[in-house]
Order: sequence, then structure tokens, then C-alpha cells
Amino acid sequence: MGVTDFFDPDGIAVIGASKTPGKMGNDAMTNIRSYDGDVYPVNPSSSGSVYGHEFVDSIHDADADLALCCVPSPVVPEVLEECGEAGVGAAVILAGGFAEVDDEGQELEDEVIRIADEYDITVLGPNTAGYCIPHLDLYGSFVPQIREVETGNVALLVQSGGVGITSSFQLDSEAYGVSSMFGLGNRANTGFADLIPVLDDDPRTDAVAIHIEGTEDVEATLEACRNAETPIVAYKVGSEDISEFVRSHTAAPIQGREVYEDALAEEGVVFVDSITELLDASRAIANSPVPDGRNVGVVTAQAGPGIIIADELDEGGAKFPDLASETQQRVDDVLEGITYTKNPVDTGRPLPEFGQVIDAVARDDSVDIVVVYEIYEDSLGYPLEELEALAEEVDKPIFFTVAGPVSSLEDERLRMEEFGITTFYGPERGAHAVTALIDSIDDT
Amino acid sequence: MGVTDFFDPDGIAVIGASKTPGKMGNDAMTNIRSYDGDVYPVNPSSSGSVYGHEFVDSIHDADADLALCCVPSPVVPEVLEECGEAGVGAAVILAGGFAEVDDEGQELEDEVIRIADEYDITVLGPNTAGYCIPHLDLYGSFVPQIREVETGNVALLVQSGGVGITSSFQLDSEAYGVSSMFGLGNRANTGFADLIPVLDDDPRTDAVAIHIEGTEDVEATLEACRNAETPIVAYKVGSEDISEFVRSHTAAPIQGREVYEDALAEEGVVFVDSITELLDASRAIANSPVPDGRNVGVVTAQAGPGIIIADELDEGGAKFPDLASETQQRVDDVLEGITYTKNPVDTGRPLPEFGQVIDAVARDDSVDIVVVYEIYEDSLGYPLEELEALAEEVDKPIFFTVAGPVSSLEDERLRMEEFGITTFYGPERGAHAVTALIDSIDDT
Repeated sequence: MGVTDFFDPDGIAVIGASKTPGKMGNDAMTNIRSYDGDVYPVNPSSSGSVYGHEFVDSIHDADADLALCCVPSPVVPEVLEECGEAGVGAAVILAGGFAEVDDEGQELEDEVIRIADEYDITVLGPNTAGYCIPHLDLYGSFVPQIREVETGNVALLVQSGGVGITSSFQLDSEAYGVSSMFGLGNRANTGFADLIPVLDDDPRTDAVAIHIEGTEDVEATLEACRNAETPIVAYKVGSEDISEFVRSHTAAPIQGREVYEDALAEEGVVFVDSITELLDASRAIANSPVPDGRNVGVVTAQAGPGIIIADELDEGGAKFPDLASETQQRVDDVLEGITYTKNPVDTGRPLPEFGQVIDAVARDDSVDIVVVYEIYEDSLGYPLEELEALAEEVDKPIFFTVAGPVSSLEDERLRMEEFGITTFYGPERGAHAVTALIDSIDDT
Repeated sequence: MGVTDFFDPDGIAVIGASKTPGKMGNDAMTNIRSYDGDVYPVNPSSSGSVYGHEFVDSIHDADADLALCCVPSPVVPEVLEECGEAGVGAAVILAGGFAEVDDEGQELEDEVIRIADEYDITVLGPNTAGYCIPHLDLYGSFVPQIREVETGNVALLVQSGGVGITSSFQLDSEAYGVSSMFGLGNRANTGFADLIPVLDDDPRTDAVAIHIEGTEDVEATLEACRNAETPIVAYKVGSEDISEFVRSHTAAPIQGREVYEDALAEEGVVFVDSITELLDASRAIANSPVPDGRNVGVVTAQAGPGIIIADELDEGGAKFPDLASETQQRVDDVLEGITYTKNPVDTGRPLPEFGQVIDAVARDDSVDIVVVYEIYEDSLGYPLEELEALAEEVDKPIFFTVAGPVSSLEDERLRMEEFGITTFYGPERGAHAVTALIDSIDDT
């Protein structure tokens, strides 16, 4: 038994499954039905079937090693004990009402931990929105519409299921997905330190984004980060001023950012300040070859947004190398001296030759990372041909920050993503992501 | 003559107008054709008409007091002199190649300034993407598709036209617009200090968002801000490290943020750190009654994102007052003690009674500002009925931060905007905007 059961369950039981829309046990059935394996709705007071699956009276009648527990907190210990007797190896406890609430809830949670230990059950939660693994069509959650979240190569490992759901839908809104999303909740016996190694081993995960409110197992978390080969990006929230509110959520101990920031930075973890930065930085790092250094070549079709990018990158520790003389010659030939042709290169406005300028800069040996900005114009489009060739031939991170009418540019933005150019809406998001990538380089 | 000519031109001449797609003079004609007034394409080498307007040979043949100059920089002085002779009062000089480039360009710009002074012409630019006033269908710009930018109540006054265009399309992507957008460019004789009073007087403008790279007229800008009654939000970019690149753009002098930050804060201007924050803060301030203080009531349907909001607000100087006992009673009655019912109030998950909880908190006298967070669920929707009543009956800023599947929630988000609830995607954007609103309160 172990956390790997969440990835490869041999039958899933939904305990407290219901036919009644709006009930947690119905929402969970709605989400789990797409799973390509045996699903058992468990409810002694229901008969017939729900979404084509026949109700069974007890977990003992289900041939399942994963249980989604959709029952209220007071019933959870009893249900978990039955799961243990039936040989269930992993359980998701969705209900709240445990250690996050009061002393009585703490006792209930202690009981859950004791039973899980006795029967060797890996417990996700309690008090979590659950988890999802889109490429397996496996959505172990009560959140409506979570099945819209698609497959990507970033894993989300979040203390708050709500943050995981918010983040997953935010990725979805720009046509990205997740390799998996795990909401830890109260961490009865499964925390960051347990899931990081599993996500590190997951061949579909190219970066792990973690969201921390506070944990008891700081040392174990650090060790898991130290041992992971997959890049990790972290966002720590919850200052001491709002500690009571934080504790009431996932029973998190009171810990400031500083508990994590310095220690995790030592383990090569990149720190960020918001959900958007967490997702953008993770995408940037997941999709890029490791750059040789922090020398950034900037190509912009409009100087103003280019200045914003250069400003943020400068603050983030980037260098702007002089271009090699042959590169400078190529750029000058194209631009005929009418704009700022040094790095950061400004073409003044979108031009048919914009792709040639990117090509020249990207192939310059002094440039480790390429960042492009261009407002989209229908008549020109984006320089897809040059970008596709660069993505194939140049082993450097290339980022394209887009702006303009979304309905017009979206198709070409997604084409870029397909052939390996990571894109961002707006200059700052791109610059912040590149700053995170630079932070991830071990060049000290 | 003066900057008001940009708002109410009596005939518009497009100098260098062209029938050839892709030429600046064609793009400008594409954009200006929607204007409900006389438009004169001026080009001695063209005949016939473009977009239904007959070419004229000279500005003397046009009955216009506004000129859009779409000619290359070396020709601009000659063209401007003709404009002066023909009685044109205001001109937009779109071409670059002036003070931002080199000494020769500086001489050309000095010539422009001299001619403008001699003939009393108000010049926007040179080196600008132009301006637009959507409610007049007036798009004085060469930027393709700029006519997609719609009417809103925030004016954008930007040093870089590129930043103005980027910002306008970013607003458009979430169905917002601008009251006007002015790209200052090199500021030959029209700068922040000239346009702020005009935008302050504009009844359609409820907040002015300014973007500064650096200006010669810091004192005049400060005075304009001091005298303005309309709220102003400012974003200063361009650190000294990248000063050469900044200067090459709009010929801006080298000035750090600190030159502006303290001084403008004294004049009641709110400072922000990114385009997104500039737009969000401006929307929040434009659409809200002035709050009585910094006491924020937070209502969240998911604690994790609620913690992010509380954390950011706490850092931004917000207070979280205790709720009055009758409010607390109302909240407790609805929530039955299963979640964190104190402020910040957490309902645990979306509930049919969510609107009642918002209502209780919003009507509490100790609360000056209300911030709500809820992941959208199809079966529940957002509590529009309660929100509409609150928007009508409670004279406080109420903000709703949304998350979830965009395609499902977007209609209801826009309904909220219609009846006066300002919305934001994601917890951080909402929190940053409220922090800016708090900064704008003169409660020291």
C-alpha cells in the first residue's frame, strides 16, 4: 500500500454515493464515472444504480483498493475501519470537520490516523477537495466540472484543495492542464514529503508546483525536495497575522515564509509570490531545456512593453549580453538602423522580418535564454515558421509574450506551445517566469 | 487650440493616407473611418478614394482642425508647417525617428516643437501609437484592430503607445474598455501635465491610469495630480540599469521610481507594480464609492484562496474587524458552526446560502469594504439576487473574485459588473486591487 495506489487503483469505491444532485456523493460519482476501471457506489440506503454503476451495500461487496469517502466527519472513523477490514489500501477523505475545527475534531482526526496506521491505509485528507489525474480520466473529487481540467506536464501539490481547483481552472482557461493535482488538506498521514517522491518519479511530470500554508514535517519536506530531480516551484502563504484563520483551514501550524524560503532555496526550490507566478514559473521550467546561464536576449516589437520586460528581468538577476558582431550585423541589416538594435532589440513595430530578428538573436552564442514580445497584427501573424525551426534547432529556452486581440491571436499562440515555445499573456508574466527560470539555475 | 481638440475635432485630415494595405497611412484610414465626422485622406500622389473618402492633394483642401500625420520623420516638419498654415489646431505625429534615436532626430524634434509653437499646434507624439476615444468611435492610431477596444470609465495615459495598446487589449479580453487612451510618445509639447486636467474634466472618466517611463516635467506632473479630483493610479517603469534602452524609446530622462513614488503619494496618487495591477486598481477605484475606512469583510467559499486574499490584504494595510453580534448570529445561523464563521468568513464550500452570508457581512456597520471569493459551480451559480440588492442598497465597495471554468461563469461575472459589483479573476488580483483602493483613502 502507498501513495502510488492513487495513480493505479484496482477498483474504486465511492462511499456515501448518492443519486441526489448537489450531494457530495453524487458529485463524486459524476466525476469518477469517466474512470476506465471498476467503480462501486457504496450506500446501504440506496438501490439501483447511479451513472450506470450498481449500488452495493458495503465496502465488503466492492472489489476496490481505493475509497472516496463522501460521508460526514462523525461517520468517517467507522467507514475507514470497514475499508481497512476490506483491504482498501488508499482512501480520500473529503469531509471537513476535523483538526481544523476544534478539539473534538482533533480527536476524530487522531482516530482516523490510528485506524489508518492499524490497517496501513494511505489517507489523502481529511478536509480536501481531492485529487485528479487527467491522463487517466481519474477525477477523485466532489468539485463540479473538474473533468474539464486536461492533461499537462506540471503537477500541482497543494495544501488547500481550493487553491488546487482554482489553479487547475486557471491553467484550463489558457488551454493548459496538469499531470496531476493533489489537495493535501489536513495531511492525516500523507503530506508533501510523501507525494513529492512519487511526483518526481512520474514520467508525465516535468515540474512540481507546491502550495504551502504550514506543515509539521518541514524537515521531511526539505529532504524530499533535496532528493527530487524534477524541478520544484513553491508558493508559501499565510502570515502570522492571519494565523488563526490559517489554522482553521487545514490545521496548519503557524509558520512564516522565512521558515521555508531560505531552506528550500538551498534545495534548489524556486520561490514565487502568487498563484499566477506559481503556474507560469512551473510551465516555464517544465517546458524548457536548462539554460547555460542568465544571459537573456530580448526581442520586442514595441519598446514600452519591452522596457517592462527588461526592467523586471534586470531586477530578477538577468544579464543582457552584447550581441556577437555577426548577429548585430544581421539585425542591423533587417532593421536598417531605425530602432534600438542592441540587446534588448526593438523593432519599433511588428514587421514581416520580425522572425529573422528573433532567429539572429536566438542563434547568438552569447544568449542563453530568448524572450520575445509582439502585439499581434492579423495581417502579419506571428513568425511561426522561424519559431518552429528555432524550437527544433536551438537548445535554449525561448519564450513568447503575446498581446493584442485574444480572439485573433489565440490559435497561433497555441501553435507555438505545440512546437515547444512557451507563451505568456502580457510582458510581466513572461518576465516573472523567466526570472523564476533564472532562479532555478544552479550557477553559484 | 489645445488638447481638447483631440476630443472634439471639426474634421480630421490623414496626411500620408494610402490605399495600400500594411502602410501606416492605410491602417490609420481603416481606424478613423468609423468616426462620425468629415475625414480627408491627404496624399498628392493618390487619386480616387479610400474607404469612401476622396483623396485631396493638400491639407489646404481639407476642412480639418485635427491632423493624423502618417509620413516618415524627415517629412514631418514640412507637413506640420503646412498644417499650421491651414489652421490645424492639433496633430498626432505617429512616426518615430526623432529625439529617441540620435542627435539628428533631436534636431528634427526641435524643429517640430518650434513649428508647433509658432502656429500654436498641440502635438501628440511624435513616436506614438496615437490615441482612441471609443465612445466617439474615434481611433487616431495605426494599430490594426484597435477598433475592438470598447468604452469604459478608465482613461489610460501612457508614455508608451505600445503599453497603451497592450493595456487596452488586456481590458478588452475581459470585456472592459477605456474612456480614452492617449500614448504620449516623445511629448513634443503635450505631456502628462497637459492631459491630466482634461481627463479630470471628462465626465466619462472615473479614474486615470498613468504609465511613466520618465519626464522632464516632474513638477508640472505633480501639480496636475494635486489639482485633479479624479483618482489617479500610477505605474513607473524603467530602472537606471536599463536607462539607455528607455531613453531610446521615448527620449525619457533617466529617473528611478523613487523620483515619483514619494512625491506622487503625497498628491494622493496610488502606486502599483504592473500593467495588470494598474488596470485592476483603476477599475476598482473608478467603480467604487469611497470607503469609510480600511475595515474589510472577507467572505470566502474556499478557505485556501481566502487565506491568499487575507494575507495580501493584511500586508496591504487592511483591517479585519470583528463582526457585530447580530451579524455573527446571522452568519452562524446559516453556517451551523461547521466552518470559520468569524471575519474572514469561510463557508467551506459553495452553498445555496452563500448570498445570505455576503448580505450579513456587507450590511455590518463595522465593515467598510467587502471582498468575496467563490469557485463557480453550475448548479448553484453566483448569488446574483443578493448581490444586486446589496449593490443598490449598500454604499460600500463590494468586490467579487471569481474562479472556475471560465466558459460557465463568464455570463454571471458580467452581470455582476452591470449592476456595480467589480470582479476579478483569481484571489491575488482582487486583493491587490483592494489594497490599491485602501491606499487611495485619505485617512491619515
